[in-house]
Amino acid sequence: MPQLVNGIWVKGDVAAGEIRDGAFHREPTRFRDRITPDGRPDAAGRPTLPAEAGRYHLFVSYLCPWASRTLIVRKLKDLEGIVGLSVAEPVIGEDGWTYAEEQDAGGRVGRIRHHHQLYTASDPAYTGKVSVPVLWDRKEGRIVNNESADIIRIFNDAFDPLTGNRLDLYPEPLRDEIDRWNDLIYADVNNGVYRCGFAKSQASYEEAFDRLFAALDRVEERLSACRYLAGEHLTEADWRLFVTLVRFDVAYHGAFKCNLRRIEDYPHLSNYLRELYQWPGIRETVRIDHIKAGYYGIAAINPTRIVAKGPSVDFDRPHERGRLPGRGLRQRD
Amino acid sequence: MPQLVNGIWVKGDVAAGEIRDGAFHREPTRFRDRITPDGRPDAAGRPTLPAEAGRYHLFVSYLCPWASRTLIVRKLKDLEGIVGLSVAEPVIGEDGWTYAEEQDAGGRVGRIRHHHQLYTASDPAYTGKVSVPVLWDRKEGRIVNNESADIIRIFNDAFDPLTGNRLDLYPEPLRDEIDRWNDLIYADVNNGVYRCGFAKSQASYEEAFDRLFAALDRVEERLSACRYLAGEHLTEADWRLFVTLVRFDVAYHGAFKCNLRRIEDYPHLSNYLRELYQWPGIRETVRIDHIKAGYYGIAAINPTRIVAKGPSVDFDRPHERGRLPGRGLRQRD
Repeated sequence: MPQLVNGIWVKGDVAAGEIRDGAFHREPTRFRDRITPDGRPDAAGRPTLPAEAGRYHLFVSYLCPWASRTLIVRKLKDLEGIVGLSVAEPVIGEDGWTYAEEQDAGGRVGRIRHHHQLYTASDPAYTGKVSVPVLWDRKEGRIVNNESADIIRIFNDAFDPLTGNRLDLYPEPLRDEIDRWNDLIYADVNNGVYRCGFAKSQASYEEAFDRLFAALDRVEERLSACRYLAGEHLTEADWRLFVTLVRFDVAYHGAFKCNLRRIEDYPHLSNYLRELYQWPGIRETVRIDHIKAGYYGIAAINPTRIVAKGPSVDFDRPHERGRLPGRGLRQRD
Repeated sequence: MPQLVNGIWVKGDVAAGEIRDGAFHREPTRFRDRITPDGRPDAAGRPTLPAEAGRYHLFVSYLCPWASRTLIVRKLKDLEGIVGLSVAEPVIGEDGWTYAEEQDAGGRVGRIRHHHQLYTASDPAYTGKVSVPVLWDRKEGRIVNNESADIIRIFNDAFDPLTGNRLDLYPEPLRDEIDRWNDLIYADVNNGVYRCGFAKSQASYEEAFDRLFAALDRVEERLSACRYLAGEHLTEADWRLFVTLVRFDVAYHGAFKCNLRRIEDYPHLSNYLRELYQWPGIRETVRIDHIKAGYYGIAAINPTRIVAKGPSVDFDRPHERGRLPGRGLRQRD
């Protein structure tokens, strides 16, 4: 991945800076500020920013599963009129994530074309990876947070007084269960597919591959008995899994060599994937054309950049998940 | 593909010389001599070489479907004690097809390590592609034939007086039917997968992809009603199809982006594939490890050269082809 070094954009190999001993190691995100309903310091005394309509803006790509999480929660939490959206082109070029047209980043920063401009505006000496999603503060002209796991919690919690939306994707009584699934799914599934696709040695690829399919087997078994990962309620754990599942057969199976099986070959996972895809509002967050163009556009693993035409997928086919008890999304107590 | 130019080995991009307007065009084979039982001129008055035990030698790779045809017919026609065999390493390096150990090419040429040495021994000024299989004359020290379609006919016809084998894979009454299937399958399936994998433009890839899957649909329909392509007898048309089918799910689907469907997804083709794989002697001609190493070892389409670990395939599972009338291989009249 090209990246910023002391605020200077350096072109280079995709993910090269994240390879050690042939294995892909995802660089940690750096901007981790929080938004709360009232902007008061949090329980640990750390400052927060106040929720406001029109102040914050989400910069994403439809390619990216981490960005997709935030799109899904923005949708479910009725934040489309509160938090603006800019969508980058799916193919990562020499300038990194780029917008087809200039985007308005607010007063201090003005119009930008390249995603890395958000990083240098936030920290003129920034060194590191430039990733989506970014939750941006238009008023201050800086990144609030570029960690998707934080952003979905912010969206879950901070804006309810403005929207009246009372959904809770991370309910207190289910947190242990959600955390356990998140840990497995982050390491071995969400990031596991990247560890397969960006491995530079056969051994590190095979280790990631084995862990990926072992994790999918565990999830398949869970979903044979439970409607959702944490039981009868749909939680953030499900949406964090969904973003990888929906990309799996069309992109990771081929472009990232995650090809022991397709999701289509798992009876429970495939039905579960269809239920989540068909959930109101979700299919609009999924752009298969962007996903395929983006992953097959990575020259380091696909030098011809030809986009595989298959497979044909139909996520709108009926699912059979209704046979398991489920209560859908949970409202805040 | 690196190649010979005026007898000099020139290293270069795989298949680059066979790309025009973004599409892959297979270079014609050049050595087309024939062997007959008695070495007399053929009906058209062209000279032929006489069948002899130990004189001819087959140079192949287990990667290559064209070479596999010749291995299959060598096996079915009981030629293993008559025509010797050398197997190249599966990964095509800068020196092209290479043997792990020196191979004895006979008196005049002696020991060789690189397959291209067979070509320069046959024609010191040879210019062009260096391919497997090669049917080699140890006595004269030159290539007899490097066209697999010819070699399987030679094996079918020339050595019967030496072996007593009377199988006929190209029986006179079925030739029109066989030729029709061969034409379709050569252009759109055997070579079609290469046209997908080596395309340099999205348009030429998609055209090859559409033709490939249209042809598989036609074959699937045929095999829903007939045990074999030409009817109740197994002929060369079946073996020419088999060599691509057996490579499809493990290699072409991923490495060549032939991913609309897997062979496993076609009920008739997949059962037919298993029947042929289980035919006595055939599974010994199939080396999945060589196939995967070879295709995923092509740096022009897979720069990391990491070999996909999946899918898991089991060609030994029972097939259901017995429900259709079949008489197997045909004996010569």
